[in-house]
Amino acid sequence: MNGAPKVALLGAGRMGQVHARNAAAHPRLELAAVVDRNADVAQGLAAELGCAVATADAVLADPDIAAVLVATSTTTHLECVLAALAAGKAVFCEKPLDLDLARLRAHAAELARPPQPLYVAFNKRFDPHFVALKRRLDAGEIGALESLHLISHDPAPPPPAFIPTSGGLFRDFTIHDFDTAGWLLDETPAELFAWASCLVDPAIAEAGDVDTARLILRCASGKLCVISNTRRSGYGYDQRAEAYGSNGAAFVGNVRVATTESWTEDGALAAPIQPGFQSRYAASYAAELDHFAAVLAGEAEPLTGYAASIAALALADAAARSVASGAPVKVSDV
Amino acid sequence: MNGAPKVALLGAGRMGQVHARNAAAHPRLELAAVVDRNADVAQGLAAELGCAVATADAVLADPDIAAVLVATSTTTHLECVLAALAAGKAVFCEKPLDLDLARLRAHAAELARPPQPLYVAFNKRFDPHFVALKRRLDAGEIGALESLHLISHDPAPPPPAFIPTSGGLFRDFTIHDFDTAGWLLDETPAELFAWASCLVDPAIAEAGDVDTARLILRCASGKLCVISNTRRSGYGYDQRAEAYGSNGAAFVGNVRVATTESWTEDGALAAPIQPGFQSRYAASYAAELDHFAAVLAGEAEPLTGYAASIAALALADAAARSVASGAPVKVSDV
Amino acid sequence: MNGAPKVALLGAGRMGQVHARNAAAHPRLELAAVVDRNADVAQGLAAELGCAVATADAVLADPDIAAVLVATSTTTHLECVLAALAAGKAVFCEKPLDLDLARLRAHAAELARPPQPLYVAFNKRFDPHFVALKRRLDAGEIGALESLHLISHDPAPPPPAFIPTSGGLFRDFTIHDFDTAGWLLDETPAELFAWASCLVDPAIAEAGDVDTARLILRCASGKLCVISNTRRSGYGYDQRAEAYGSNGAAFVGNVRVATTESWTEDGALAAPIQPGFQSRYAASYAAELDHFAAVLAGEAEPLTGYAASIAALALADAAARSVASGAPVKVSDV
Amino acid sequence: MNGAPKVALLGAGRMGQVHARNAAAHPRLELAAVVDRNADVAQGLAAELGCAVATADAVLADPDIAAVLVATSTTTHLECVLAALAAGKAVFCEKPLDLDLARLRAHAAELARPPQPLYVAFNKRFDPHFVALKRRLDAGEIGALESLHLISHDPAPPPPAFIPTSGGLFRDFTIHDFDTAGWLLDETPAELFAWASCLVDPAIAEAGDVDTARLILRCASGKLCVISNTRRSGYGYDQRAEAYGSNGAAFVGNVRVATTESWTEDGALAAPIQPGFQSRYAASYAAELDHFAAVLAGEAEPLTGYAASIAALALADAAARSVASGAPVKVSDV
Repeated sequence: MNGAPKVALLGAGRMGQVHARNAAAHPRLELAAVVDRNADVAQGLAAELGCAVATADAVLADPDIAAVLVATSTTTHLECVLAALAAGKAVFCEKPLDLDLARLRAHAAELARPPQPLYVAFNKRFDPHFVALKRRLDAGEIGALESLHLISHDPAPPPPAFIPTSGGLFRDFTIHDFDTAGWLLDETPAELFAWASCLVDPAIAEAGDVDTARLILRCASGKLCVISNTRRSGYGYDQRAEAYGSNGAAFVGNVRVATTESWTEDGALAAPIQPGFQSRYAASYAAELDHFAAVLAGEAEPLTGYAASIAALALADAAARSVASGAPVKVSDV
Repeated sequence: MNGAPKVALLGAGRMGQVHARNAAAHPRLELAAVVDRNADVAQGLAAELGCAVATADAVLADPDIAAVLVATSTTTHLECVLAALAAGKAVFCEKPLDLDLARLRAHAAELARPPQPLYVAFNKRFDPHFVALKRRLDAGEIGALESLHLISHDPAPPPPAFIPTSGGLFRDFTIHDFDTAGWLLDETPAELFAWASCLVDPAIAEAGDVDTARLILRCASGKLCVISNTRRSGYGYDQRAEAYGSNGAAFVGNVRVATTESWTEDGALAAPIQPGFQSRYAASYAAELDHFAAVLAGEAEPLTGYAASIAALALADAAARSVASGAPVKVSDV
Repeated sequence: MNGAPKVALLGAGRMGQVHARNAAAHPRLELAAVVDRNADVAQGLAAELGCAVATADAVLADPDIAAVLVATSTTTHLECVLAALAAGKAVFCEKPLDLDLARLRAHAAELARPPQPLYVAFNKRFDPHFVALKRRLDAGEIGALESLHLISHDPAPPPPAFIPTSGGLFRDFTIHDFDTAGWLLDETPAELFAWASCLVDPAIAEAGDVDTARLILRCASGKLCVISNTRRSGYGYDQRAEAYGSNGAAFVGNVRVATTESWTEDGALAAPIQPGFQSRYAASYAAELDHFAAVLAGEAEPLTGYAASIAALALADAAARSVASGAPVKVSDV
Repeated sequence: MNGAPKVALLGAGRMGQVHARNAAAHPRLELAAVVDRNADVAQGLAAELGCAVATADAVLADPDIAAVLVATSTTTHLECVLAALAAGKAVFCEKPLDLDLARLRAHAAELARPPQPLYVAFNKRFDPHFVALKRRLDAGEIGALESLHLISHDPAPPPPAFIPTSGGLFRDFTIHDFDTAGWLLDETPAELFAWASCLVDPAIAEAGDVDTARLILRCASGKLCVISNTRRSGYGYDQRAEAYGSNGAAFVGNVRVATTESWTEDGALAAPIQPGFQSRYAASYAAELDHFAAVLAGEAEPLTGYAASIAALALADAAARSVASGAPVKVSDV
């Protein structure tokens, strides 16, 4: 591991811990330090992974640290990223880069062509199942792609307290589907229409948000994309994609916890699907760090950064505007 | 078969032949006569099924004939139905009753409370797979139904010459989904939004129609329904339904031509799905005739008639209007 | 239907009724009469199907009746078949032709080259799913066939009173698998080994039979075939086949009562498989009658008759002998 | 990682590398050294994993090394294990402990109650899918277990040069199924019958072995177990289990490389199954090391050791004897 670049984690919450563990286990990265405002949390993770506890300032000032993993709370992502870039660090930023489109655009100069590599973690692009679908589409297996259906159903709603700072369903949750849509369609949707309801939990409506949405996105070419979202499925973490083309269709199905099946007089019961993102997307989180190691080694450009962040956030803003106005919205108007 | 009511077929085209064969084979119906403007077609079917060839006038004037099966070309359905009801015959009418909402409404008096039973053939309500789903929803198996997704993809587009008289994608094709939506949702959608493209065959665009559509329907209760349509799937006759509720989800999948599977290094290949409506819905067509026999025996009321026809056609008109205007449309405005 | 050959049913039990209804509905057959020692049963079926009630003697003496469907109790099959052939009738005989190999062989002269066509109803050869598998094997889709696995699990054991006259598990139940094995392997197995237990119902053991068996059949070419049988599955009527070849594998799966699926936190529940042979094999019974109509029309030779009966029964006798001796048995020794 | 016990690898071949990587990545183990007679191989692995290269003698003499992972060639397993135990090391031994039943029994004293823990790697017992099945059986989900079917089909035959030292199909390959059978049946089979053919590669026959086998195992209780083996499937690494009980059935299916599916006019193509044991059983190999770490920490007893090795090998010897004699063999006679 001589020569492996040193990285530090900013923010040791749920996703920060995932990234830190992947960094620590990666043969081409060295996790040097973790930073968290909660000292116990930082200490616990540092002990588990055999690295130091530090402050953000110390990390940014340390010339031996080549890169930071930003996994602080969403509202501080942008500030951390800008500071890290200014300090000469490469950045791995948990999505989203920011929830405010105007603010992001105001920093286009630093972010679109950053002095150091900036990777924003749209992890589905590293999921082996979605990647396999993308390869099939690119290989022309279903002919010309005509329409897409993305299904993202959460197993259970977040605590109501999370809603007000989440950015709302579209910026917090659908954001992954917006990125996936443009990636798989190979075309940025030009306009969209969204209807949303609060059917799961009245507390979500009280917080000014929705929990069930259906969207149609339309491309300039006429390609259509439907997105289905709900905050509570009742059957696990549902993550599917359906692509329809001129010669057939291709799908990503759910990942089950086991290949077991039970046959009784009630029918054939397959094992449950993965209960949440941690298990469903574990491989994609590891692959993201692998990509970031390649970026640090100068072998790859960040797959997604400012441009992808802007594109997905613009669709999220358009969706919110469509729900508010009850009319379709052109993405170029956002 | 003594005492089985005599029925006559008007229109021995593709669907007329299906209904005639089911009537001839039904133990509680007697197929007495077939009528078609093409004498050879009428004669051929009559010979096969052992019944007479007749004219529409003769059938309507024959006091021994209790009912007619109307399967003429769509544009003459309404005229035939009105004449048959006026002649005192019960009527089994292939869908749609008519393509013109205003004209249908103008005949509300005769059609909504007809002197003899009037059944309009929304056959999916008799498909064992859709019926099984409906039973599960009614039994509360998935809790409160929140959203629905109906997929109807044709294997191949119709001949371009058919398009101009078809009524367009929504009145000709989506009409089944509109009826199914209200039935499964147990609530008439209040508004809808539709985007449609012509991606399959430019000749369809030249004829003023579309071939690929995505619609969102919204109920007063907030329930959402997506409908996916294409005129050409590339993989067979795709007929699915997905229902999402507070406690889980329930599905109708495709019917395959066999339960065979092949395993090679390319993967596991299941047999193709049914290639068209004739094989996919054969059981539903037979069940419709069974229902009609029960109606004639006084054991049942027609499951669908004028009201269902109006409800589905209003949604189709709203969809066409939404595509034209680019905005959602309230069904009450149609 | 002018000129459709007249057929009569001997034995209006469970299978007799199936065949009679298929004959009555067949456009190229005329069901003229039904015979049963229970007058009420005969009368009821005749009334339903619009044909006469008769005695066996009258049927055999009637020169207008071209063929008989033998579905009497198993012990009288052979006697009925011989009488019918002697009377110049073509014969459709429900399997088995007889349970006694020596007795069958004693009648080889009349049965192997019968004066009129003799079809013995090994219905799986007409099941569309098994036929589809056979076509794939014949087309070389999996390369050279190397091994086979046939699974036949009944949903529930028969009444204990049936066991003593059944001929035992191998002659009554496995007999279908023995016929299927030779058909799919395209080679008559040369030897077999069987182990059997009584695990389902002690009453079956008391009646001298077994209810759970596993057999291995070996061909002269080295091809192997496993047969799995149980009298009670606990999950429906399990009828599968697995064929393994040099380039892959091919399967027949179970037929479900619907394509519905339910997703909950317990997993994805597919609809139950068919509960019994009546629904599972309805299409094969109809296809058998269709084949028989073609035989009567001189368009086909009976697919299975004396030779197939002897081959399957010899394997059944070998299996019984293997269980008794605890050693493999050469079929040529039976 | 202070205090994590030091382990050394003996034999850096295919399986040795798997175990070494898992040990190196394990938070509760420290991989201190690798040993291999090929210096380049040892050096390469040591460099990758950041540990020392050593000789077997040095490892056994090093008081700081608590345990060895034995993954040398099969013929030297026993010798290494005995030396390591004599040197006071705990042992993780890749299966099999030895191929010679008599020799193993001759060392029963040292191996059955070893001075240090001895784990023999029957990895399927750690596979999450097989473990899930075992849990369902133990929970009584299918009632009383009556029969089992284990399918192990290799994707492609080994190089012919491997055959002579492999111990033959039953000791090399079926050995896993023999262990799995006893584990899942919860009863050691009392007798078995095996037929085997050479259908895949004549070179295997020339080397005195077979490549296609079907076995039936019978327990004293009457429970039956079928094992299906082939050295070449043509469709990947097929690893399934089917358990049939009084109330239903439970299955382990194959793991696919992705959840993608393609629908065309040919049918629905699921992604291929895992191509080999490395990917299929990766999780089980990691779990084995986890188990071994727990054993070293004094938290667990080795799940499988001498007794399991003897039981599986006795079944393998019985199978070879059955093929040779053409008769069933009692395991107690081996």
